[in-house]
Amino acid sequence: MTLIQLVTSQTQKMKASPIREFLRYSQQPDILSLAGGLPDERYMPPYPTLDSVEASQQYGSSEGEILLRQQISDIATERGVLGSVNQVLVTNGSQQALDLISRTVLNDESIILTEQPTYLAAIQAFELQGAQIKEVPSDAFGMDINALRDALDVHKPKAVYLIPNFQNPAGHCYSDQRRKDIAALLDEKDVLLIEDDPYRDLCYDNVDLTPICSYLKSAPWAYMGSFSKVLWPGLRVGYVVASEELIPYLVKIKQVTDLHTNRLAQCIISKYLASGKYPQHIEILQDTYRKKRDVMAQTMATYLTDIVDYSVPAGGMFFWLRLPKNVSSNRVCREALAQKVLVLPGGAFFANPSESDDAYLRLSFSRVSEDDLRHAVRILAGVIKKMMDYE
Amino acid sequence: MTLIQLVTSQTQKMKASPIREFLRYSQQPDILSLAGGLPDERYMPPYPTLDSVEASQQYGSSEGEILLRQQISDIATERGVLGSVNQVLVTNGSQQALDLISRTVLNDESIILTEQPTYLAAIQAFELQGAQIKEVPSDAFGMDINALRDALDVHKPKAVYLIPNFQNPAGHCYSDQRRKDIAALLDEKDVLLIEDDPYRDLCYDNVDLTPICSYLKSAPWAYMGSFSKVLWPGLRVGYVVASEELIPYLVKIKQVTDLHTNRLAQCIISKYLASGKYPQHIEILQDTYRKKRDVMAQTMATYLTDIVDYSVPAGGMFFWLRLPKNVSSNRVCREALAQKVLVLPGGAFFANPSESDDAYLRLSFSRVSEDDLRHAVRILAGVIKKMMDYE
Repeated sequence: MTLIQLVTSQTQKMKASPIREFLRYSQQPDILSLAGGLPDERYMPPYPTLDSVEASQQYGSSEGEILLRQQISDIATERGVLGSVNQVLVTNGSQQALDLISRTVLNDESIILTEQPTYLAAIQAFELQGAQIKEVPSDAFGMDINALRDALDVHKPKAVYLIPNFQNPAGHCYSDQRRKDIAALLDEKDVLLIEDDPYRDLCYDNVDLTPICSYLKSAPWAYMGSFSKVLWPGLRVGYVVASEELIPYLVKIKQVTDLHTNRLAQCIISKYLASGKYPQHIEILQDTYRKKRDVMAQTMATYLTDIVDYSVPAGGMFFWLRLPKNVSSNRVCREALAQKVLVLPGGAFFANPSESDDAYLRLSFSRVSEDDLRHAVRILAGVIKKMMDYE
Repeated sequence: MTLIQLVTSQTQKMKASPIREFLRYSQQPDILSLAGGLPDERYMPPYPTLDSVEASQQYGSSEGEILLRQQISDIATERGVLGSVNQVLVTNGSQQALDLISRTVLNDESIILTEQPTYLAAIQAFELQGAQIKEVPSDAFGMDINALRDALDVHKPKAVYLIPNFQNPAGHCYSDQRRKDIAALLDEKDVLLIEDDPYRDLCYDNVDLTPICSYLKSAPWAYMGSFSKVLWPGLRVGYVVASEELIPYLVKIKQVTDLHTNRLAQCIISKYLASGKYPQHIEILQDTYRKKRDVMAQTMATYLTDIVDYSVPAGGMFFWLRLPKNVSSNRVCREALAQKVLVLPGGAFFANPSESDDAYLRLSFSRVSEDDLRHAVRILAGVIKKMMDYE
């Protein structure tokens, strides 16, 4: 049987994730990796002890553990997203939430709007459904509102996918006004907002983080969150809170997909949240990552000012760099890897790649030590300068 | 936004699983449920203590924990399925394996062949991909080989989906000769075999259980297994072992779907398998469920002989009953529920429902006590006889 007979054309078109390919290198002990969006495991708390593990052993409900759903509903409500417990679906990390939403609303006749650049696994999830992605440019305050209006009119998309807080990969954070403007526009056009908010608790400066969903009056919405960036990604627990017309479909597809999310992980997250330790844990994470962010910013300022374009993110895990003209990010990555430093080329974060995408790098500062961050940026600066000399 | 604008036509067509609707009733404390395929939690072992829980906290690999994959490869090899560790993908229960395979090979131009009746969540997974399901009848030894040959020739399907051991819902077990004949036919026609084998360790009689995959010489294959029926379904750990040309696509789709399966659950299963306790545990399960099966068979013989058609399954969790002419299974289920006994009507297990499907019941004997099994069958017999009297 030929491959074309065996797997669908959609499946054949799937690109392997470059993050995944690069993560192979990141597992080599002598490689200093700024590639993946991994939290620092030195700051992961121990699992809480459960009162009863038996409660996690039998089949559970597709929606998730009721106690955890209530906690998530409370968290969302505190953020301004008014979703009752019935609007909460627990998922295997927010990646699954993204995939479930994608399967619910997208097919090969659909168009979806995203930021440019955007989260590469979101691109993959949308493309796996056969949807066409149209990218909308951003300025310093978030997605350009006029460009968004034009794209809504021209493309009649099924949905708009946004990461307003410490966006992956670009690191930007939407202004309060832009959030309100986007909500008003989506209400006017009655288009679904898919809002992805995994980094919000990793906030290092005083910025507005109000979910855009919370400003919507009538448009349908799906708000996604995750415990992976702040607790234990290996447990794979995330969630989606969605508007009432959408949630029954998400639950049905969740059921067909894998029946339900593993209960032991849900119970552990739930117990930890109930322990009251989370706020203090987040303070520690914020202090830790803020220091790393600052070290990175200082080292960048020392070695790369006037050479690369970048801004200092107010939260999250990433610096997004634009390289000097005619310096290829793929070549920089290969050369840096030869010197045992791993960073990601930016091309994979563009849904519709063009040659000009070969100008970006994503650097994650969350997992490596401050000394290693300094070392990595120095190596990278050397590589970039050397390539500029060749031009 | 209207629903038709919001969700895809595929999603709108999805039926709610009747099992899921019925499971709501099964959670009421006064309901005696023979509905779900749930193992008896009184025989679930305690979780083993892990040497290091830290190893489960960080992101892991899409393929699964390497130690567990090796153990699964060994299990498969022992059963005759020759899959190296590189051909093993760990999934969130075998339901996810089914969904991943479905997404890899099926789209709205595809036809897949199944047994008639078949596992209802398999029907849902195939239909969610838009595939057309064609059912092939079985006799006492498995899928009818001539009917299969005809269906392969007429429908040119992408795959054939089979549950050869203690089939859900019909309970049948394929003969050794039928397994070989089907493998030879699939080799001849070069059609993918999707073999689902979650019940094999729940074997109560001396029957052949050789995977059909193990007889294939050239056709592509995917062999699915699960720890849900024999250990802890709440942990959601299953697997697929697939032929070399298929596995890279399954891994990519797994990655897009939810990055990877939760590591803590994988570590727990792996540690338990390594402890050497599994063979003795399975003996206990077999003894326990065999007794329940026998009680069920005896009570059926006492109260329902000459009234319903059924055969005694050699393993698994289910009796499959054909009701007398003109007795509606849906009415029987509703009337039994009024008397606090929950069983499933068979209609949902037919991919292409017809009126004649309203003649079947599925009874699960795995979770309830022997006394309760006797009581449930007596109630059911009363309901059925009463309905016959009305005719």
